[in-house]
Amino acid sequence: MSANILGVLFRVTAFGESHGPALGCVIDGCPAGLELSVTDIEQELERRRPGGVHGSRDENDKPAILSGVFEGKTLGTPITIIVHNTGQNSADYDDLKDIYRPGHADFTWEAKYGRRDHRGGGRSSGRETLCRAAAGAAAKKLLALSGIVVRAWTSSIAGLRQPSPQEEGFDFDEIERNPLRVPCKEGVLAAVEKLREIREQGDSAGGLVSCLITGAPAGLGESVFDKLDARLAAAMLSIGACRGVEFGVGFASALMKGSENNRASSREGILGGISTGQDIFFTAAFKPTPSIAKPQQAMDREGNTREISIKGRHDVCIVPRAVPVVEAMAALALADFLLLSRVARK
Amino acid sequence: MSANILGVLFRVTAFGESHGPALGCVIDGCPAGLELSVTDIEQELERRRPGGVHGSRDENDKPAILSGVFEGKTLGTPITIIVHNTGQNSADYDDLKDIYRPGHADFTWEAKYGRRDHRGGGRSSGRETLCRAAAGAAAKKLLALSGIVVRAWTSSIAGLRQPSPQEEGFDFDEIERNPLRVPCKEGVLAAVEKLREIREQGDSAGGLVSCLITGAPAGLGESVFDKLDARLAAAMLSIGACRGVEFGVGFASALMKGSENNRASSREGILGGISTGQDIFFTAAFKPTPSIAKPQQAMDREGNTREISIKGRHDVCIVPRAVPVVEAMAALALADFLLLSRVARK
Amino acid sequence: MSANILGVLFRVTAFGESHGPALGCVIDGCPAGLELSVTDIEQELERRRPGGVHGSRDENDKPAILSGVFEGKTLGTPITIIVHNTGQNSADYDDLKDIYRPGHADFTWEAKYGRRDHRGGGRSSGRETLCRAAAGAAAKKLLALSGIVVRAWTSSIAGLRQPSPQEEGFDFDEIERNPLRVPCKEGVLAAVEKLREIREQGDSAGGLVSCLITGAPAGLGESVFDKLDARLAAAMLSIGACRGVEFGVGFASALMKGSENNRASSREGILGGISTGQDIFFTAAFKPTPSIAKPQQAMDREGNTREISIKGRHDVCIVPRAVPVVEAMAALALADFLLLSRVARK
Amino acid sequence: MSANILGVLFRVTAFGESHGPALGCVIDGCPAGLELSVTDIEQELERRRPGGVHGSRDENDKPAILSGVFEGKTLGTPITIIVHNTGQNSADYDDLKDIYRPGHADFTWEAKYGRRDHRGGGRSSGRETLCRAAAGAAAKKLLALSGIVVRAWTSSIAGLRQPSPQEEGFDFDEIERNPLRVPCKEGVLAAVEKLREIREQGDSAGGLVSCLITGAPAGLGESVFDKLDARLAAAMLSIGACRGVEFGVGFASALMKGSENNRASSREGILGGISTGQDIFFTAAFKPTPSIAKPQQAMDREGNTREISIKGRHDVCIVPRAVPVVEAMAALALADFLLLSRVARK
Repeated sequence: MSANILGVLFRVTAFGESHGPALGCVIDGCPAGLELSVTDIEQELERRRPGGVHGSRDENDKPAILSGVFEGKTLGTPITIIVHNTGQNSADYDDLKDIYRPGHADFTWEAKYGRRDHRGGGRSSGRETLCRAAAGAAAKKLLALSGIVVRAWTSSIAGLRQPSPQEEGFDFDEIERNPLRVPCKEGVLAAVEKLREIREQGDSAGGLVSCLITGAPAGLGESVFDKLDARLAAAMLSIGACRGVEFGVGFASALMKGSENNRASSREGILGGISTGQDIFFTAAFKPTPSIAKPQQAMDREGNTREISIKGRHDVCIVPRAVPVVEAMAALALADFLLLSRVARK
Repeated sequence: MSANILGVLFRVTAFGESHGPALGCVIDGCPAGLELSVTDIEQELERRRPGGVHGSRDENDKPAILSGVFEGKTLGTPITIIVHNTGQNSADYDDLKDIYRPGHADFTWEAKYGRRDHRGGGRSSGRETLCRAAAGAAAKKLLALSGIVVRAWTSSIAGLRQPSPQEEGFDFDEIERNPLRVPCKEGVLAAVEKLREIREQGDSAGGLVSCLITGAPAGLGESVFDKLDARLAAAMLSIGACRGVEFGVGFASALMKGSENNRASSREGILGGISTGQDIFFTAAFKPTPSIAKPQQAMDREGNTREISIKGRHDVCIVPRAVPVVEAMAALALADFLLLSRVARK
Repeated sequence: MSANILGVLFRVTAFGESHGPALGCVIDGCPAGLELSVTDIEQELERRRPGGVHGSRDENDKPAILSGVFEGKTLGTPITIIVHNTGQNSADYDDLKDIYRPGHADFTWEAKYGRRDHRGGGRSSGRETLCRAAAGAAAKKLLALSGIVVRAWTSSIAGLRQPSPQEEGFDFDEIERNPLRVPCKEGVLAAVEKLREIREQGDSAGGLVSCLITGAPAGLGESVFDKLDARLAAAMLSIGACRGVEFGVGFASALMKGSENNRASSREGILGGISTGQDIFFTAAFKPTPSIAKPQQAMDREGNTREISIKGRHDVCIVPRAVPVVEAMAALALADFLLLSRVARK
Repeated sequence: MSANILGVLFRVTAFGESHGPALGCVIDGCPAGLELSVTDIEQELERRRPGGVHGSRDENDKPAILSGVFEGKTLGTPITIIVHNTGQNSADYDDLKDIYRPGHADFTWEAKYGRRDHRGGGRSSGRETLCRAAAGAAAKKLLALSGIVVRAWTSSIAGLRQPSPQEEGFDFDEIERNPLRVPCKEGVLAAVEKLREIREQGDSAGGLVSCLITGAPAGLGESVFDKLDARLAAAMLSIGACRGVEFGVGFASALMKGSENNRASSREGILGGISTGQDIFFTAAFKPTPSIAKPQQAMDREGNTREISIKGRHDVCIVPRAVPVVEAMAALALADFLLLSRVARK
């Protein structure tokens, strides 16, 4: 594990700045013989595209596979996926060269590295998540061989809570039908309306993404430090806008008694950091997009406070676009644990 | 990172089963020249002891340093800390050999490894956290050289919410004065009373632990996958009973608008996964101890459901004992990032 | 460390098959602020080109930097270098689809992965070393900041031993003047003649590459398992055709007495796996190119023995082309240890 | 991989100074269900003992297993093996506190870490190899399940070359019968005589250790950077006194033509870094023990040259004691690759 390398056996090296020549990833350790095509990756990138969410910039990302796949199947060698940046307008960011945008990593990256690519946030841009989605496509294919399916959705957006899988109105098929990735047809319209309103105010919204993993056999996850939930938690918090994560009953368990919680979690998918064979459920909280049109106070390089209003087309809410990224990150963790589970016994 | 090895540069290998001969850890990569004594470690283990919490078993842990320290200072070689198990009563667990205790890792470990040490949960026992506390003691000494201090406390116990640092009644000095690790003198009595009540019902309680990191310079944390908050999240969820974690505004940010959240998080200690130089604050949720005296339904090896009542002395609430473990895990993550920050620039 | 990822802090992920779309590498962990240009990389790739060695195929490799460099300096983000394959003639290899070439990895890769890209050896081709040369270019720039220089040369070719640095006739400047990378003007002609002769016989030749590292400060190398010489040894043996490596006095030390060896190695550059501050010297042995025109016996997929004669343009001796690869691999190890040395003390 | 942690899946953390309280290792990642006893480890430590070699100090090492084994079988949790130091006489080293012994790591460790444990070389002592032998015992048990056997022997000592497996006089059974670990009864007497002579001169001797691995299936070793021979080379050079290593035909291949070498290596056990299924053979060169009674020039802390004569009981030749260490290191590499081979295909 390092800044840009993820995983022990299914290892992803991601690269690329928002306004540089290209972004992509190299997957080292994907088993040989797995069917994988550009279409598999395109589908995931397509799901990550802005779609109908108001205000998002258009990203028409065309991936290419540069290595690791031969005659439609993986070779066991590194799989390289690349997406060339096109249509980025770096001039949009000239004004921000000496300013640290509120809620963004501008200041911290400069503090750490002494310099930064200010154009669109450089590597700290949300655009880096396309590498995750691309790598996740391969992980999903590997998981599919074992019947493991990872599905995420918007479980709350702009304050509008959506039904959970046990509740009426929840429909898995609906998720991919609407651009907000809400699991309930009735929820779409209200959310669209609410987001429009927020956008008109020059503001942005946050929300929750929930994820359900089905088909995972018992025994995934490593004991003690590298627990399944520990790795999933890191996976979620590594997504730029994520501020928290909870598993199963989550924070509510802190208020329960042992007898209640033992019952409530009797069908919990993870115990002691290892999968039980039952469904795994978790929820991640995403803060609102910090880039807003509304004037804000920002610090500049000289330490002065300046008022800025962020130009360009920005997502009013990144939650729907986080959905495939949450899935991808969960799939990458599971793929790694699936391989690790092969060496647990003599 | 692996099941029992943590960290990239400040690497901790932990070992030991609850009822085996010994537990301990080996720290590889601790810089040379750091003052470290058995007393430093004893202090952290002492803080992890049950203290006055009703029902906890006594653990009188005497650590020894077997390597890596010479004439009171680290050598740059592996530091080995060991604690021999004494006074454990393995016979207490004979009845549980073929039963999977609810809420424990009994079933999942057996599913994974094909076998388990059933005595006290073996390595999945909460007792393994003493290795973390021991390693954390060394990490804290390293952090202290840079003025970094990690402090955690019980921010909610058995449903009783405690004041936060900005609120009246919060007193850092109080935390170590009471066995519940609550930060407010007035909160102690009510919580003690509530826990007694729960214990009399043969039940247990959960709670929240909050953590404040002060003195961290800007620039700690690695970009993209190995963000400071991502690593801290993994660190928290790797503690057995932890079910969720949130940073700064946390889940509440999902309900805010961008303008609100940018303001609320203007003094947030982490941006883009890298420390800002300001205080870092996070909260972890802990479920109630699953071991309760109250009769419960449990599955046995043959798949039959049996009623069990867990004997032995168990913590009615592990939250106070999780406090030093949260600190230790945060300190270990920070120590690693502190070393990594030395190589960020040419 | 994994199949295609090298290094702890200066981490190189390499990718690409000989006849796939592209080869390249991603460097994660290169410190920010280092000057790096395409020209730096081109120079190293140019040195790896066949030059005047008879029989080598032409490889006109044009690298591009896709990420990690902004305004001429590294950002601290992953540096991606890519070289598109052009002019490869995959049809040349159709005959070899079901045959395992002697001395090549054809059989073992298929045994391991169940399949292989037979075109030019796929990823087991010597062509993968261009990724190493490219990454090495960045490592060399980092080392140069500390005054560390890595120079390799052909110290024996086709049985013709060349003078060593202490001997008359050795001239560092000569190395880059001749395509054989021999360090002695007088040695060139005889070697060229000898190679021509061997080539006319449809055969190939091996040789030795020696390497001298100057300017390395005392203290590089990690103790016990990850010693400087251990890592350099792995680096050498990871180059396909390498069959052995020796440091300083090397195998000759096995015949010496302690008093002799202590004297002989009194200026040895590595003691206990850590650099002394003096020059470091080692030699690696390379076997002859296994691809020869002469008819040979080969095993096919059905286990039958068949006579083959390998077509295409192959190097009669890869030793001169191994010279920059040896340098690159040594530079990558040193760059990693240079960064690691920053965290040895408190 | 780090200073004191070895392996990707079968991970060994080693610890301990020569004159500290204890040495040992923790194995994380050994599969569950493997039979392992203290006796298995004792046997390997016993083989590493000085035996009848003149001049060696006595080390009566009693290992204990502190974790990871339950009812005679591994649990899948970390296996901790410890050996307490007894009978060391630290006062012997008081004179050497401010002197850097020739050929030892005294100077380099101090240069790196700023300080060192001067007593017996601290962690740079050859005594650390007992940790390797102990861990190797577990690795050998794992390999045995797959029919893989690793055997090493003294193939040259004090300049006396021993027969190779293809030559007359070579006898595997002889190796463990004599304290010099030579594979030929006739060779023992001459070598003993030669070593006595060298010892009487106050000097020491070097030699070669060869190793044969039988029963390894095709497919062990990772491609490109982490080749089987690359890892074995690092394993050898990580042993303090090792100065070189060669595989199969080795350095001799540099003098051969391709047609000769292809024939000579037709039964070579490694191609392209991956095992072929045939026997694997390699040889490592060991320099003479640098600690000799004969007066030598040494540098002290102030940079002055002083004459020293090293007291205490030192091995006149460490080669026989290196034999089990070579086996252990090879076994550890193979065990790791054996586990890695389980994830090469989908």
